Amino acid sequence: MKHFRKHDLPVHEIRRFLEPGPIVLVSSQWKGEHDIMTMGWHMVMEFSPSLIGCFITSANHSYDLIRKSKECVFNIPTTDLMDEVIGIGNCSGTDVDKFEKFGLTAEKGSKVKAPIIKECYANFECKLTETKMIKSYSLFIFEVVKAQAAISPKYPETIHYRGDGVFMISGKNISRRRQFLPDRL
Amino acid sequence: MKHFRKHDLPVHEIRRFLEPGPIVLVSSQWKGEHDIMTMGWHMVMEFSPSLIGCFITSANHSYDLIRKSKECVFNIPTTDLMDEVIGIGNCSGTDVDKFEKFGLTAEKGSKVKAPIIKECYANFECKLTETKMIKSYSLFIFEVVKAQAAISPKYPETIHYRGDGVFMISGKNISRRRQFLPDRL
Repeated sequence: MKHFRKHDLPVHEIRRFLEPGPIVLVSSQWKGEHDIMTMGWHMVMEFSPSLIGCFITSANHSYDLIRKSKECVFNIPTTDLMDEVIGIGNCSGTDVDKFEKFGLTAEKGSKVKAPIIKECYANFECKLTETKMIKSYSLFIFEVVKAQAAISPKYPETIHYRGDGVFMISGKNISRRRQFLPDRL
Repeated sequence: MKHFRKHDLPVHEIRRFLEPGPIVLVSSQWKGEHDIMTMGWHMVMEFSPSLIGCFITSANHSYDLIRKSKECVFNIPTTDLMDEVIGIGNCSGTDVDKFEKFGLTAEKGSKVKAPIIKECYANFECKLTETKMIKSYSLFIFEVVKAQAAISPKYPETIHYRGDGVFMISGKNISRRRQFLPDRL
């Protein structure tokens, strides 16, 4: 598996990697137990504070770990982790330790106790800031309190899910900066 | 501009096009006035009913049209509409009729009064179902009540935003269906 050299990222810049819609591996811990879940339903909700909304149902073993610890890490996997992404979605943390089963490295975060997945391109440490919509819509709102991303490549080759076992892989990147009004970027 | 031949889509299947994270053109109308906005902050929230969450601030001219009519259409543009997507984001419906300015065709929807953008690959007609989070988080939750998508190509070449004037274009699609547990698709 790839080992990325990473640098810190201003938290409002996470849109660069999250807004195009990649699948995310969400890692969490509570009282010595950790878990990972594969997640595709998320969105950026604010730059400052840096907010993310996402959908996590109680059917996930991670649900309780996240709700009780009020923390998690959004890890962005690249295409070389495709088998792990599918495998993690196929099993439950009730039965297995997913870090162990998939040979992933749990690194210490700097602002949260939830583990970082070292093998992912980027890691966004999150604190749960809004719980009002969890019961009715399974909607969690997190604040990103610390972010890091690989230095190279500039843009990761990410995995995007279409349902029914089909994935879209991120394609080329193009800048159209000159066409934008400065306050509309 | 491309003219797609379209077919109806079961509303729970919109994830195929929306979940990978493309930029969406949101069209709306209220009392004879219509508008379009470019939007990138959205997520799938449920299959049945087919729910979408998205972020729309009051700085957008469309905000009032959508809030008052309680309707909109999510239109998925493809890369051939890149200039229109940027142009629509660069101006305000307060000043211009965006359908006219960008030469887009407003078609009648079948379940909502908000216009469909004919030149887009797919059109999801939406009704506002949850307003409680609009004030605090600019979060709108819509139910997709009718969906249509182009017959060909099978997967559209969509536009994904990274901020700072940089776009990611959707890449190749691959099926890994055989690796999935049936209930985890």
